[in-house]
Amino acid sequence: MSVKINGERLKERLIALSEFGKDIDGGWSRFTWTDEYNRAKELLKQWMEEAGMTVREDPMGNVFGHLAGVDDSLPVVAAGSHIDGVKCGGMFDGNVGVLGALEVITTITENKIKTRNPLEVIIFVEEDGARFNWRILGGRALLGEVTREDLDKYKDKDGISIAQAMKASGSDPDKLNEVKIDPKKYKCYYELHIEQSHLLESEGFSVGVVEGIFGSVWIKATLKGRTDHAGATPMKFRKDALVAASEINVAMERIATESGETTVGTVGWINVQPGTINTIPGKVELVFDIRDIDENNLEKAVNSIREFCSEVCKKRNIELQVEEVVRFDPIHFPKHMIDAVDEAAKEAGIASMRIASGAGHDAQILAKITDVGMIFTPSKGGLSHCPEEYTDYEDIAKGTQVLFNTILKMAEVVR
Amino acid sequence: MSVKINGERLKERLIALSEFGKDIDGGWSRFTWTDEYNRAKELLKQWMEEAGMTVREDPMGNVFGHLAGVDDSLPVVAAGSHIDGVKCGGMFDGNVGVLGALEVITTITENKIKTRNPLEVIIFVEEDGARFNWRILGGRALLGEVTREDLDKYKDKDGISIAQAMKASGSDPDKLNEVKIDPKKYKCYYELHIEQSHLLESEGFSVGVVEGIFGSVWIKATLKGRTDHAGATPMKFRKDALVAASEINVAMERIATESGETTVGTVGWINVQPGTINTIPGKVELVFDIRDIDENNLEKAVNSIREFCSEVCKKRNIELQVEEVVRFDPIHFPKHMIDAVDEAAKEAGIASMRIASGAGHDAQILAKITDVGMIFTPSKGGLSHCPEEYTDYEDIAKGTQVLFNTILKMAEVVR
Repeated sequence: MSVKINGERLKERLIALSEFGKDIDGGWSRFTWTDEYNRAKELLKQWMEEAGMTVREDPMGNVFGHLAGVDDSLPVVAAGSHIDGVKCGGMFDGNVGVLGALEVITTITENKIKTRNPLEVIIFVEEDGARFNWRILGGRALLGEVTREDLDKYKDKDGISIAQAMKASGSDPDKLNEVKIDPKKYKCYYELHIEQSHLLESEGFSVGVVEGIFGSVWIKATLKGRTDHAGATPMKFRKDALVAASEINVAMERIATESGETTVGTVGWINVQPGTINTIPGKVELVFDIRDIDENNLEKAVNSIREFCSEVCKKRNIELQVEEVVRFDPIHFPKHMIDAVDEAAKEAGIASMRIASGAGHDAQILAKITDVGMIFTPSKGGLSHCPEEYTDYEDIAKGTQVLFNTILKMAEVVR
Repeated sequence: MSVKINGERLKERLIALSEFGKDIDGGWSRFTWTDEYNRAKELLKQWMEEAGMTVREDPMGNVFGHLAGVDDSLPVVAAGSHIDGVKCGGMFDGNVGVLGALEVITTITENKIKTRNPLEVIIFVEEDGARFNWRILGGRALLGEVTREDLDKYKDKDGISIAQAMKASGSDPDKLNEVKIDPKKYKCYYELHIEQSHLLESEGFSVGVVEGIFGSVWIKATLKGRTDHAGATPMKFRKDALVAASEINVAMERIATESGETTVGTVGWINVQPGTINTIPGKVELVFDIRDIDENNLEKAVNSIREFCSEVCKKRNIELQVEEVVRFDPIHFPKHMIDAVDEAAKEAGIASMRIASGAGHDAQILAKITDVGMIFTPSKGGLSHCPEEYTDYEDIAKGTQVLFNTILKMAEVVR
């Protein structure tokens, strides 16, 4: 099989999609259930139909483009990703995986290729979790891990709940029970994605064969000190919650660096109250995002930061609440799923390297019900979740070609 | 002179005034040029008129209640403070000084006391600077230190400029040139204020005789690192602006503690960009509020934090901008102004102690054009700028009695 995907069309579609959710000052902030998001989604549905797919959208907003197999009762070979993003992020994260999967199907129908298994392109809603601080929401809903109450509980910074946002956007929170999918429906799921790190670029490869996904733990800490006058309160009388939080954040960096070679730890969000220049902060909330592919090192880092929080707050006489708000265990992909990508790359004559994903992906949720695999393309300078995020279009075409060859291998071409 | 001020009336008025700007969840947020502020101001103007004063409001919103002297051409003996506050602050800061001064005049007219010099109660606008991050604005305008351009430049968190807020509130930014007062108009100015610290309470005094006001410097630092994916970016590739800022904030505490016995340093406000959990902060802004009564120690602390910022940002390869946005030199009150309060307290049979003010006050601005003095009452637990801010009403009455005796001394009673 030497059919080639159309890299030029793929590039044009990436650029067309990037028109939705552009920030005024550069970058992209395409949040789920917004007008920009919906318009991007509608364009994709149109392209899906043009490629011969039957399109279904579930009440959460997850979109499924289905291409019938020769035996359409067989389990589905799926590929996809997401089109939502972080605030002021890039135009490749997620979008490459959705448009790559679409390009695979478009090439298949153009070339009148028939597969035994049916194929599917999935657009997962709310992967990056930037709006409601809850990641991979669409994927979780597919597995029945989201309750109707959750949709009222989680709110964006303007106080709008997920359910309210869904309603305003044409989705239906009250039909959540229709979202869950039959675990037997899928044979496997592949996701093409930008690496969002430095390894492929520094080692000089266009394609990464992903062996697994880092586990990630989000821990929310609330520190209550005492609000006080910044000028009139001597240093020794203070209970400054922000200095305590600062000490802890410096330790987060040290703990992540020392915990293991692949451990990372970050504080990206912090809420300081009351937040005026001449007032000692009485209350601070912050969230630690800790990740590793190694279970033991991840646990070590999580325990260390929890202990450090307790020590600092005890020393400073500050009240502390710590809550684990998100946990994903590390995922190690099945060997035959990794090998299939390796072989697909070899067939296409594209050099590849083995790699692990530091970022979380929709694939990690689907891993609970089916075999999953991933393909990475390089991120220039390792940059992602920022306007400078960039992947060479030739590399995207190479990654998509590997996805094409892999999908055909899994779905079995019928000649 | 053994006339007594009316402590009960003063208490009632403090409670009546506290109805304006109450937060739903406790505390007070009475920002300048808001509806709550204006209604509080109107009530005070009514009380001023009832006490026989002629009321004038300048185009900024500063209010002057004038009580004629026997020779009304003589320089004015003034007293006052402010009625704006920080976000979620208390009901005593500023209000005690305004209502204390009003009580002094009310007692004078009730008792038909005549003074040689005219008397004045001043309500300064925008002392705490909580809305526009610019402190003692009304006082500065009286001295001609504010330009029309400044009123457009400074904005609140909703993007509303001072000029816009003034217009919406009935003040007139375009008549700013009418605000400046004649430096020769005043003989002296006294301000009664809550201590906002722990000294009077821990030493067991109801009244503090203030010797001077801490100098204060606000330094704004902007740190530009690199926005990056929190999961996919190894620790060694990061330029995390928030970890850098955290390291600096911990140092701010150490520098303030080590710089001198009275030095204080605080970061109360921080802006983290982009501010999402799974993104490494690429940009952080923060403001250091550094104060001391000792000029040398203040300068030492300011230089140390500037140097530390440079070191940390150089080490972390982070771009740094540092800007001094506010500077008030320490103020040492004239000896005869301090002595007059001492004597007034003795006459009233109220024990007092000498003290310096860590907080800034309207008095420090008027010190540029006239002799100023201050009287402190204790703050329970040293607390201020918080809902728990409290001063015993008996202490407020004692402080007001000392203010009354001091004012009559300076304005010369005519029998």
